[in-house]
Amino acid sequence: MLTPADLAVATLGPCRHHSPLRLSTVEGDGIGNFVPDDTRVLCNIEHRVSQPGAGELSFERAGARQWLFFDPPRTKAAIVTCGGLCPGMNNIIRGAYFELHSNYGVPEVLGIRYGFEGLNPRAGHTPQRLSGEFVEQIAHVGGTVLGTSRGAQDVGTMVDTLARERIDILLCIGGDGTQRGAHAIAEEARRRGLPISVVGIPKTIDNDIAFVSRSFGFDTAIATATQHILGAHNEAIGVRNGIGLVKLMGRQAGFIAATATIASAQVNFCLVPEVPFELAGEQGFLTRLHRRLLARGHAVVVVAEGAGQHLLGCTPQEFDASGNPKLGDIGTFLKERIKRYLEEVRVPTSIKYFDPSYHVRSMAANCQDSVLCNRLAARAVHAAMAGKTDVLVGLAHDTFIHVPLPAVTGSQKRISPESDLWMDVLAATAQEKW
Amino acid sequence: MLTPADLAVATLGPCRHHSPLRLSTVEGDGIGNFVPDDTRVLCNIEHRVSQPGAGELSFERAGARQWLFFDPPRTKAAIVTCGGLCPGMNNIIRGAYFELHSNYGVPEVLGIRYGFEGLNPRAGHTPQRLSGEFVEQIAHVGGTVLGTSRGAQDVGTMVDTLARERIDILLCIGGDGTQRGAHAIAEEARRRGLPISVVGIPKTIDNDIAFVSRSFGFDTAIATATQHILGAHNEAIGVRNGIGLVKLMGRQAGFIAATATIASAQVNFCLVPEVPFELAGEQGFLTRLHRRLLARGHAVVVVAEGAGQHLLGCTPQEFDASGNPKLGDIGTFLKERIKRYLEEVRVPTSIKYFDPSYHVRSMAANCQDSVLCNRLAARAVHAAMAGKTDVLVGLAHDTFIHVPLPAVTGSQKRISPESDLWMDVLAATAQEKW
Amino acid sequence: MLTPADLAVATLGPCRHHSPLRLSTVEGDGIGNFVPDDTRVLCNIEHRVSQPGAGELSFERAGARQWLFFDPPRTKAAIVTCGGLCPGMNNIIRGAYFELHSNYGVPEVLGIRYGFEGLNPRAGHTPQRLSGEFVEQIAHVGGTVLGTSRGAQDVGTMVDTLARERIDILLCIGGDGTQRGAHAIAEEARRRGLPISVVGIPKTIDNDIAFVSRSFGFDTAIATATQHILGAHNEAIGVRNGIGLVKLMGRQAGFIAATATIASAQVNFCLVPEVPFELAGEQGFLTRLHRRLLARGHAVVVVAEGAGQHLLGCTPQEFDASGNPKLGDIGTFLKERIKRYLEEVRVPTSIKYFDPSYHVRSMAANCQDSVLCNRLAARAVHAAMAGKTDVLVGLAHDTFIHVPLPAVTGSQKRISPESDLWMDVLAATAQEKW
Amino acid sequence: MLTPADLAVATLGPCRHHSPLRLSTVEGDGIGNFVPDDTRVLCNIEHRVSQPGAGELSFERAGARQWLFFDPPRTKAAIVTCGGLCPGMNNIIRGAYFELHSNYGVPEVLGIRYGFEGLNPRAGHTPQRLSGEFVEQIAHVGGTVLGTSRGAQDVGTMVDTLARERIDILLCIGGDGTQRGAHAIAEEARRRGLPISVVGIPKTIDNDIAFVSRSFGFDTAIATATQHILGAHNEAIGVRNGIGLVKLMGRQAGFIAATATIASAQVNFCLVPEVPFELAGEQGFLTRLHRRLLARGHAVVVVAEGAGQHLLGCTPQEFDASGNPKLGDIGTFLKERIKRYLEEVRVPTSIKYFDPSYHVRSMAANCQDSVLCNRLAARAVHAAMAGKTDVLVGLAHDTFIHVPLPAVTGSQKRISPESDLWMDVLAATAQEKW
Repeated sequence: MLTPADLAVATLGPCRHHSPLRLSTVEGDGIGNFVPDDTRVLCNIEHRVSQPGAGELSFERAGARQWLFFDPPRTKAAIVTCGGLCPGMNNIIRGAYFELHSNYGVPEVLGIRYGFEGLNPRAGHTPQRLSGEFVEQIAHVGGTVLGTSRGAQDVGTMVDTLARERIDILLCIGGDGTQRGAHAIAEEARRRGLPISVVGIPKTIDNDIAFVSRSFGFDTAIATATQHILGAHNEAIGVRNGIGLVKLMGRQAGFIAATATIASAQVNFCLVPEVPFELAGEQGFLTRLHRRLLARGHAVVVVAEGAGQHLLGCTPQEFDASGNPKLGDIGTFLKERIKRYLEEVRVPTSIKYFDPSYHVRSMAANCQDSVLCNRLAARAVHAAMAGKTDVLVGLAHDTFIHVPLPAVTGSQKRISPESDLWMDVLAATAQEKW
Repeated sequence: MLTPADLAVATLGPCRHHSPLRLSTVEGDGIGNFVPDDTRVLCNIEHRVSQPGAGELSFERAGARQWLFFDPPRTKAAIVTCGGLCPGMNNIIRGAYFELHSNYGVPEVLGIRYGFEGLNPRAGHTPQRLSGEFVEQIAHVGGTVLGTSRGAQDVGTMVDTLARERIDILLCIGGDGTQRGAHAIAEEARRRGLPISVVGIPKTIDNDIAFVSRSFGFDTAIATATQHILGAHNEAIGVRNGIGLVKLMGRQAGFIAATATIASAQVNFCLVPEVPFELAGEQGFLTRLHRRLLARGHAVVVVAEGAGQHLLGCTPQEFDASGNPKLGDIGTFLKERIKRYLEEVRVPTSIKYFDPSYHVRSMAANCQDSVLCNRLAARAVHAAMAGKTDVLVGLAHDTFIHVPLPAVTGSQKRISPESDLWMDVLAATAQEKW
Repeated sequence: MLTPADLAVATLGPCRHHSPLRLSTVEGDGIGNFVPDDTRVLCNIEHRVSQPGAGELSFERAGARQWLFFDPPRTKAAIVTCGGLCPGMNNIIRGAYFELHSNYGVPEVLGIRYGFEGLNPRAGHTPQRLSGEFVEQIAHVGGTVLGTSRGAQDVGTMVDTLARERIDILLCIGGDGTQRGAHAIAEEARRRGLPISVVGIPKTIDNDIAFVSRSFGFDTAIATATQHILGAHNEAIGVRNGIGLVKLMGRQAGFIAATATIASAQVNFCLVPEVPFELAGEQGFLTRLHRRLLARGHAVVVVAEGAGQHLLGCTPQEFDASGNPKLGDIGTFLKERIKRYLEEVRVPTSIKYFDPSYHVRSMAANCQDSVLCNRLAARAVHAAMAGKTDVLVGLAHDTFIHVPLPAVTGSQKRISPESDLWMDVLAATAQEKW
Repeated sequence: MLTPADLAVATLGPCRHHSPLRLSTVEGDGIGNFVPDDTRVLCNIEHRVSQPGAGELSFERAGARQWLFFDPPRTKAAIVTCGGLCPGMNNIIRGAYFELHSNYGVPEVLGIRYGFEGLNPRAGHTPQRLSGEFVEQIAHVGGTVLGTSRGAQDVGTMVDTLARERIDILLCIGGDGTQRGAHAIAEEARRRGLPISVVGIPKTIDNDIAFVSRSFGFDTAIATATQHILGAHNEAIGVRNGIGLVKLMGRQAGFIAATATIASAQVNFCLVPEVPFELAGEQGFLTRLHRRLLARGHAVVVVAEGAGQHLLGCTPQEFDASGNPKLGDIGTFLKERIKRYLEEVRVPTSIKYFDPSYHVRSMAANCQDSVLCNRLAARAVHAAMAGKTDVLVGLAHDTFIHVPLPAVTGSQKRISPESDLWMDVLAATAQEKW
């Protein structure tokens, strides 16, 4: 259980430099305001009148601070992108560069190449010095111009590099593993007495960062996923007893599958890791699918890649370079099992299998994600310039917040089967009706 | 100043019918829960530790109720769409139909034709009886399949029609004027002792509904507007001293202009109704534009249609059918003034003027708006079935809420020049720097 | 070798009804003209001056005829869609309906359900009577609203149905198998002395119809395929020695792979069925890929599903319901072989595999395909009304033509390795350079 | 009347350098072939059997030549973009760069800044030296990275610059005025005995280049225009007697309006410059519109900007910087006249006016245009390397051709009212029926 202390943000020390941003400290003067450090955003904004609530937990609000730890003209910043692709990484690189350089006047911003590997000299990746020309057009393409990599690097080596390069600020765009790495860097720097600000910008195509309502790239991923679902629907209704089966990203959390289900409004069964299901039996998925087919003549099934792993019977767990367990392929498994089952019950069918895989994560950010990325990047820079460290910036309840890395890494947001989202999925699919 | 009483939602009476939805009242049983009526969502979720806050105001949380006022099999519902087009109207019609019919079991759902006019028999518009077949494909197109109209109708006549047609539930999709009309209908029904639930779903392309963080269609509008801005940017950089000038919707509130400015990250001046500006003088827009051109060789200007009206010198106000004051055309005015000014200061230029006008509002909802529409529609139905009336459903802090119509109509959300949004615009444009 | 006689179009008999279309037979009067039956379009439009050419072959030009075989008010038409989905099927259904009904005045147009199966009464599919309301919105969605099926039906049974239903015109939208079926129907009708016009509209996502330069849906397929290629490119450049591997449709002909390669301008190796390749050896694909990786640090590979089948060593051919041989999965085969090879030569890599499969064929037609579909549909109707039969309409050299079904079925257009298209692929990829 | 001599392409002299491209001169060896110089493509590919045709005219076929005039390692090329924006200019710059540099081995390719102005030293624009890095991402954005300008420059001055910079090849991307300029440069170079190859790539958003069936950017323009038409349709059907009025580009030629009309299949009246119309009278546009409204309750009108100029009564012609006559604004004129007329006949209406203007030309090329641009660029380079000059490359009958500039400039392709295209417009709109 978190306590208010867990949500207290670390800082490098006293802030002695006045911000160059033309903001005000007076409300009502028509000029935007610096955010005082004691502005808080409630974690829990709902309560029942009949059950007077705890609700003491709150986040530090993100935004520009009046006093900075770093003196902008003497500050050197670096940006690193880690892990898998996610729409918007380039937007954040671009946005952070312009906020640092044009708005704060930081003279030098480095792009670390190929993730944390770029902080290991043995990998031989020279950092890219960022410029307006270099970043100008990058938001039109997906991926990351800096390159990325998976897996951990030696923390001491990375901090050596930061010290040697005299980097004051490190912005870390990456997922849970990356943020654990960022935390380790921040701790090691603190241990050595190096005043380096480490600020995370959480990247997860699965939208599964704790406390963060919407992570960047998620909207774009949903839009791409929904295209595939609509294609699957077209295939399904095109033939008698047609089935469109779509496997979507979502290892531990089915947010993409669930949200795209609601967006498309054409899904009949949505299977996610958080809600276990069986194949056989009266309430089993195959039986329900059978009943649905008999009643309606077609069906669209969406399955998150991490759903139904217990059905695959894979025991000896393997792990990938990022330390994630390797998953069995639930998509082709379901395709085979559906086919076999329907042959047994003598329902002629035609199953069309869609596996968009990397398609949903490798596109350029759409408009809504561009907005989010530009806003996140600015706030990450604000936090870093004020000497915040070991912290990430995120969006909660439509407001930007700071969350200490130790409070957020290692835990993961998942769909609660009692959540509004899941109720909306069940209402949209009627999957428990059959 | 609002009091908690102002946010209390009206109901038609005691709820005696158990909801047919398969939800639970027990947390932790893995089944989604009915929302107790006393669940509240805080209006203000931020505070400063040093200034212990008022923060007593809260909204009723939207969602499915365990007990219904209406007995679904004996309920008749109607949907009406009013005012200008907005992406997502068809999604809401579709979503509300399926929630009413498939999930609650309401046998008959009418589509009122051409807005409130369709409740006036003299206009001669027969309601459309909705069916699965009728609504199936409508979400793929913009506009409203039911048609719309502007302007008020006699309240007595409309309530006569509702009574004669034995309509129990009226879902009103429309803007501020429509919600005022919905309130009048609810009041007249109450006066006559008619148990009719009137529930509003606020529609505003300008995203200017008080308390509501994001109204449906806004994301789609931003995406379309951003396309035009990128086009204007391409035109501007294509020639020496090129200027791309884009006029966007936004009569009283510049949310489209401001958000599309952040999304595109290519705008140099963003002019909105809420932030007055002058043309001439050292700090005037023309002078700043001149300086920008000299420094960078091109500029992109975005102006909301309601900005700078004082410059147009139009005094005798005219009003349109919805009662909105007619605006002068700031776009062509600026185009002419920029041209004349740059001729005077002998800067050869080429101005390309973009006026997307109805383009931004007549497209089909994008994926993110589809999600919002489907969720809003379900919650409007939940509210109505539970006998809520004189209320609208909206999204606040990422949560769905009920707001009594009297608390929300007549006021309008506008961009505060001290808001985060405007600070982000200034950071993105650097328009005060020149 | 085709002779001019092979390209002579069959007709049902003399045309005694004047067309109701308001066209003219006089050039220069400013009114569009009926197409005389002896208007021909050259098959081969190129020659070398030094090699005076054969070039006698020509196609009958498609278009509205002055005299019709059928009397529109007494004509009954039917449309059938067969085989796999292809973008634009709904546009053709819609376009043919409006041309028949609104322009010619044909009172009844039937939509045959689920392909040729719908002409077999035992399958129990009642035809859908088309109306303006039914077809109005269908072009916004992919697939076919009529449904489709694969495989042959008994010709006698199908002609029995046409005779019993008094169908005068049958428009057959489908691939090579469908057009063979259409030819069989036309022959059987002729044998029985039934004046039924059978007109084909060739559908092939692979663009592999002989004589036809561009079949409908192909542009849309390319656009979708190109999205995946750009995603693969983003993945490939995102990591050191990244490889993006994309499998695209194309069983016998690699037009999608080749054209999307040129469109994206980001592909380094394009493998198609028409151009054999080996894996091993100095000139082998794996060796070249290795050299490319060493030189550039990333690679994008596009492979058509029918490419490299000899490498898979599958001998005992199986066939699907349409009679097409089942293919081995070259995509996952290549993925495994690349992985193994690069491990052997100790090049650490990361392969991202994209298999868009049905995504490229299940989307709604884009704008350019909408134009083509509307124009094809009108010409199919013109041909049918004039009593042409056993014929298809297609686009050749930017002109619409009639091709007798016997001349076109059974043969298939393929990429010549000496063609302009393949030279453009080689120029775009430089794949023979490594 | 053109003679075969008019279509003979000028060359700089004998070709003594063997092409570095790995092509063959033998058909059937499985290797793509160099195009012999005497390969011709027929101008007219249709004839009537009863009227044995003239048909002697033919174009030189474009493509790679075996022997080159220029020795690639000693060649210097330049690219210039002139006139208004058009989707695909950046694709052509990119494609030409890679063909010149990577495929032919030309060491230096310059990008001339701001059109022909960049060849006038007094304008002070330094050429941009192109590189792979510079052009890599440019195809993702619209416009031209080189900049453009309108209007003529002194020919002698431009040739002086080419001579001083030792430029061997000048690729001119631009419209009719640009190609006239290119011709003048070629003539002046010839007069001075300078072996400079001048090759045009015709750019016209209006698709009005003589002999060229489809110019680059046209497909993209149609797609954007069609979006607006669909929006106008949504607006029109949303209210009683709604009218959606869309003005589209097309000064002398209405190809955009006509093609987008067929694409959208939602237009009721399409007005183009080539087909005169009157407002009043039984057959007048206003009367027909009135009848349509009474019958159907809504209407969509598309008007090309150059249509109906005689109605505007503008006599003293003004000209813009490119020498084009300034047009009166037919869009707002029609809007006012429709409004006034319907008030007179007491039909309450609501007109929504769409003026996409520069939107249709400033977007990035879509997939189909990317293919065309890449293929055109390669062929322009092939022509230039072989010493062709005073020539443009274009697409005719789906084949790439060379057309001497004198044969093509000054004339303009327009829609014939007797063409297939216009018949398809009339069939789609039924606009002559009312």
